[in-house]
Amino acid sequence: MPNFADQLLAAIDAKQSPACVALDPVFESLPDELRSGVRSEDQSARLLAIGTFSRRVLELIAQHIPVVKINSAYFECYHADGVRLYDELLAEAAAMGLMTIGDCKRGDVGHTAEMYATAHLGGLTPHAITINGYFGLDGVKPFIDVAQTAGKGVFVLVRTSNPSAAAIQDVVTEGGRKVHEIVASQVNEWATDRGMTGISGYSSIGAVVATRNPADAARLRKAMPNSIFLVPGYGAQGGKASDFAPYFNPDSRGALVAAGRSVIYAFSGASPNWAGCITVACQRLCAETAGILSF
Amino acid sequence: MPNFADQLLAAIDAKQSPACVALDPVFESLPDELRSGVRSEDQSARLLAIGTFSRRVLELIAQHIPVVKINSAYFECYHADGVRLYDELLAEAAAMGLMTIGDCKRGDVGHTAEMYATAHLGGLTPHAITINGYFGLDGVKPFIDVAQTAGKGVFVLVRTSNPSAAAIQDVVTEGGRKVHEIVASQVNEWATDRGMTGISGYSSIGAVVATRNPADAARLRKAMPNSIFLVPGYGAQGGKASDFAPYFNPDSRGALVAAGRSVIYAFSGASPNWAGCITVACQRLCAETAGILSF
Repeated sequence: MPNFADQLLAAIDAKQSPACVALDPVFESLPDELRSGVRSEDQSARLLAIGTFSRRVLELIAQHIPVVKINSAYFECYHADGVRLYDELLAEAAAMGLMTIGDCKRGDVGHTAEMYATAHLGGLTPHAITINGYFGLDGVKPFIDVAQTAGKGVFVLVRTSNPSAAAIQDVVTEGGRKVHEIVASQVNEWATDRGMTGISGYSSIGAVVATRNPADAARLRKAMPNSIFLVPGYGAQGGKASDFAPYFNPDSRGALVAAGRSVIYAFSGASPNWAGCITVACQRLCAETAGILSF
Repeated sequence: MPNFADQLLAAIDAKQSPACVALDPVFESLPDELRSGVRSEDQSARLLAIGTFSRRVLELIAQHIPVVKINSAYFECYHADGVRLYDELLAEAAAMGLMTIGDCKRGDVGHTAEMYATAHLGGLTPHAITINGYFGLDGVKPFIDVAQTAGKGVFVLVRTSNPSAAAIQDVVTEGGRKVHEIVASQVNEWATDRGMTGISGYSSIGAVVATRNPADAARLRKAMPNSIFLVPGYGAQGGKASDFAPYFNPDSRGALVAAGRSVIYAFSGASPNWAGCITVACQRLCAETAGILSF
């Protein structure tokens, strides 16, 4: 059975970029030519346009980038037909040689968590998913178990970047640690104790870390040395590639930065060459993030 | 626009029971007659049997119980076809006069949370869903916004009952409060400040509270006086109805206890009268939980 962490790092090496494209497609942001003639209440036609766009994006980025992250929420709002498209896109991306992450942030306990794990990591599903660790190990173990059997991975939410995240995640505990640091130390325990470590030394149990504070990033990097960080928000707030250096280990490994809108919407709506704009933006993302690896 | 909390309490009054049936169907637990002849690898046939069973359960319980909670995970593992059945069952349950809760525990921030909120609370969706509050207000507000527009409700995860929940949820903070108490105080703020309170005095922003410690339940009851508690696990661990009294306010309101397996699997597999067994178990659940209201 392959190890997800090893596969991911090999894909990063092969494409010389520790980046992934976040595919979160909304109808309103598609190129004009794909939106033209679609009535706003026609959910099937909207979803069809999203499918056409998403497939084209996958074709455009597959030769440049190692990983695509597809966000379940943007498909769930189209109910069963959307979920079918989500599954199809993940399978098609994998067939194009992309590593795939299902961004679905599932979390529950016991048998329910087993069902979510089967749904999102069993059979023909992405190489890894994002999960919520608020439940402790009971909520995470069912995902780890299915991931281990299937050679897949999980990224546990540790610190999110939204303004109010601090209200819960940064509350200081009696021992002086913040809540998200407690979660981080749990993730590190799971990452090292659960037989998920590959020959690379990295674990298939990773972490979503989205703090915008370099000192916090460096601290979390030390707290979870064997976990690969999934770091969203590259390009969205105008940050430079070097701002993302603290997420990496001294071996230039250990993080995957994700860029969404700056790549998939890198065109003006009326442009006849929207596909070319996406390709250029993806190439730029790869080149910029390749630069982080020299830190 | 109706207020979810008012609707829920009226439904509880009408059926004289503060209980809901948790519909978490798995093929292996269905009556023999529904499983007979279905090959284990035939996902469509398995899902068809689950649909037949679930529809029968809804018919059997609708006249006795005020609310059904349907767990998304048990349908997501059948991918798009499962999600279609989940949506259909929720709509059919509502048409039978049941209040419906979609147990999907979604959580994210920003635009992604808006998409989840639209998916699970917009249009033809349940009266309320469960959500994860680890993100703080940014992660909850998009759900509240859609719920408010649609006259629906949310139950925010505060304390789960699994053994390892304490590892994160019970960590003590500098101020002496546990992490889940911080979440509870946030929920109480949102419940009272967001214009979601009905004429009953209860808010459409509720909480999932599943501690098995009566003192904890009483403390959380005081911390979130205007929130309705969704309390899973009734009947599963052999607890008595009186054990659930601390989840209620002195007005005998404010909680909805959920029973799953003890109702929907209240038969032996080979029984030709499995439907009768479910009806009896549902009636017993209603009678027992009606007794809590006299405390």
